[in-house]
Amino acid sequence: MIQIAIDAMGGDFAPEEIVLGGIQAAREFHISVVLVGDKEQIEPILRRENAEHDPLISVHHASQVIEMDEHPGLAFRKKKDASVSVAASLVRSGECGAMVAPGSTGAAVAAGLLGIGRIPGIERPAILTPIPNMKGGHTFLIDSGASAQPNSENLVQNALLGYWYARLVHHIQEPRVGLLNIGEESIKGSPVAAETFAKLSRQKAVPFAGNAEGRDIPSGKFDVIVTDGFTGNVVLKFAEGLSTFFMQLVKDSISEGGLVAKLGALAVHPALKRGMMKKIDYAEYGGAPLLGIRGGLVICHGASRAKAIKNAVGLAERICNERVCEVIAAAVGDINTETLEQKMQIDAEG
Amino acid sequence: MIQIAIDAMGGDFAPEEIVLGGIQAAREFHISVVLVGDKEQIEPILRRENAEHDPLISVHHASQVIEMDEHPGLAFRKKKDASVSVAASLVRSGECGAMVAPGSTGAAVAAGLLGIGRIPGIERPAILTPIPNMKGGHTFLIDSGASAQPNSENLVQNALLGYWYARLVHHIQEPRVGLLNIGEESIKGSPVAAETFAKLSRQKAVPFAGNAEGRDIPSGKFDVIVTDGFTGNVVLKFAEGLSTFFMQLVKDSISEGGLVAKLGALAVHPALKRGMMKKIDYAEYGGAPLLGIRGGLVICHGASRAKAIKNAVGLAERICNERVCEVIAAAVGDINTETLEQKMQIDAEG
Repeated sequence: MIQIAIDAMGGDFAPEEIVLGGIQAAREFHISVVLVGDKEQIEPILRRENAEHDPLISVHHASQVIEMDEHPGLAFRKKKDASVSVAASLVRSGECGAMVAPGSTGAAVAAGLLGIGRIPGIERPAILTPIPNMKGGHTFLIDSGASAQPNSENLVQNALLGYWYARLVHHIQEPRVGLLNIGEESIKGSPVAAETFAKLSRQKAVPFAGNAEGRDIPSGKFDVIVTDGFTGNVVLKFAEGLSTFFMQLVKDSISEGGLVAKLGALAVHPALKRGMMKKIDYAEYGGAPLLGIRGGLVICHGASRAKAIKNAVGLAERICNERVCEVIAAAVGDINTETLEQKMQIDAEG
Repeated sequence: MIQIAIDAMGGDFAPEEIVLGGIQAAREFHISVVLVGDKEQIEPILRRENAEHDPLISVHHASQVIEMDEHPGLAFRKKKDASVSVAASLVRSGECGAMVAPGSTGAAVAAGLLGIGRIPGIERPAILTPIPNMKGGHTFLIDSGASAQPNSENLVQNALLGYWYARLVHHIQEPRVGLLNIGEESIKGSPVAAETFAKLSRQKAVPFAGNAEGRDIPSGKFDVIVTDGFTGNVVLKFAEGLSTFFMQLVKDSISEGGLVAKLGALAVHPALKRGMMKKIDYAEYGGAPLLGIRGGLVICHGASRAKAIKNAVGLAERICNERVCEVIAAAVGDINTETLEQKMQIDAEG
């Protein structure tokens, strides 16, 4: 049976909400979880929730924690017994199939890259973030923050990672993969974008649907949109800020609208909240996978509560069940055309 | 009296809506406008609107048009009598103080760069776009599409351009200038971002308030947010798409909400529309100025109708009245510290 490691000490509400999320995943989804962290803090919560003897829940002690304000790479190297590092080592050893990491995104990426390790042939792991779109589904933005300045080869690999994730985990038959750019024409944008366009057009491993513009992220025209971690991260945090802003605007325009509008608002509010919030609520989705490493890793928002953690555990299990890492490892060769061409050239010259 | 040139042939609704916007600007704001374009098409509209003898309105004939799908730079060089080029030449000669350009953003930037010309010392002109924020004002994003891959020196100049625009045109006493990045720490992000952070921290011409994250664009924590034209353009178009999406979500959740929600919606809708749409409606603001050139240039959305054009003409006049170009030209020396240092070093070595 697949086990999912959870960094129980990460995030704003650790360990309380993280442990509760783990318990819910065990009880509702029947997933076997390993809570990694300070057992002195974790065990009392399990006892209080009558979960200490649940055969699906175990505790793996780790004595240290990587804090939000630490340099992720340095902290990962220094704190060998940090909960996030220990969780990664459980995945590396094969004891767990995947891990869930709330808290510092930087620490989670370091744990994936250095603790679990890259898939051979993948140079830079990338974070895939689902963004709700107008077609009722999600657009997968990859990379949304792992690698700030990738080259065109890395971006081509992001296309591969996103394509297989959309196929395997979301069962999209033939995902439409676009490249985020500032115009539809192939020569638009930065030199890296133009180079990536050319490379994506040449390869055959992933069907390439052309350039995507910012407005295509929520339009649903593409299933996967490839970008660098700088742009992706800005877009993601901007979306977060803009969602808050829109909800504020709705509230303001209701409260400034006089008595009739206020009475109307009372009637409309439950429907609005149900329909609108559910779609933009990251807790429904759980988290964002780090792809390109030899095991599952789901990064959760720092403000995650039990429900988000539970759903992240569910997602982590799905990544294992669908054999995402294995399929990607097998597919890498198909897309690394440049490397292959270079190799053949070297062989020919040698 | 300052005259504003309007490219009457640019945008999806040219010349009809552009000419109407020019007439409204003359009548409501008492601004003198020069409609540039095919007089055979423009004059009948003026006659129909009883505006042909308005002393504030004149027509300057231009026989060509740069289409949306043409390569902006090439088209600008080839079509010497294109309306956007002729409008730029009226600004260059001093006949007009500023111009309004609906239609192709690329053609407008080419007209500004090649037709009007750069301010000495400014390497790359930049587009400043106002984005509504939660404090009830606007955050000015600069650059939002003129230059896809600027260096750190260009980004420092964007800070200067945005700072003076916010002070002069919006009368913000001491604008808070931030650098768009993927974390608050100085060493975060791409090498260009880290370099820009260091340079902005060293100079004294513009008060630098540190790194801004994506969520700070709508939060109102900064008045001016500096970025490259790639990221800025993606953010801008994403905001456009997301606004459409949110309005759709509001509609959907109302229509799916049953009879009570529908009745409530009837009552709440006018208030929602008044409060919400007014804030995110670009037509209220008119357009986005191209800064760093020797004259005013306001770029309008391709879908602009009369009201947006009218407001863009108002903005163009304000840019002239507040002497934005002159102040920037005078301030450039203060921020080009690197160039100065380099010069001194060369002098010392020479």
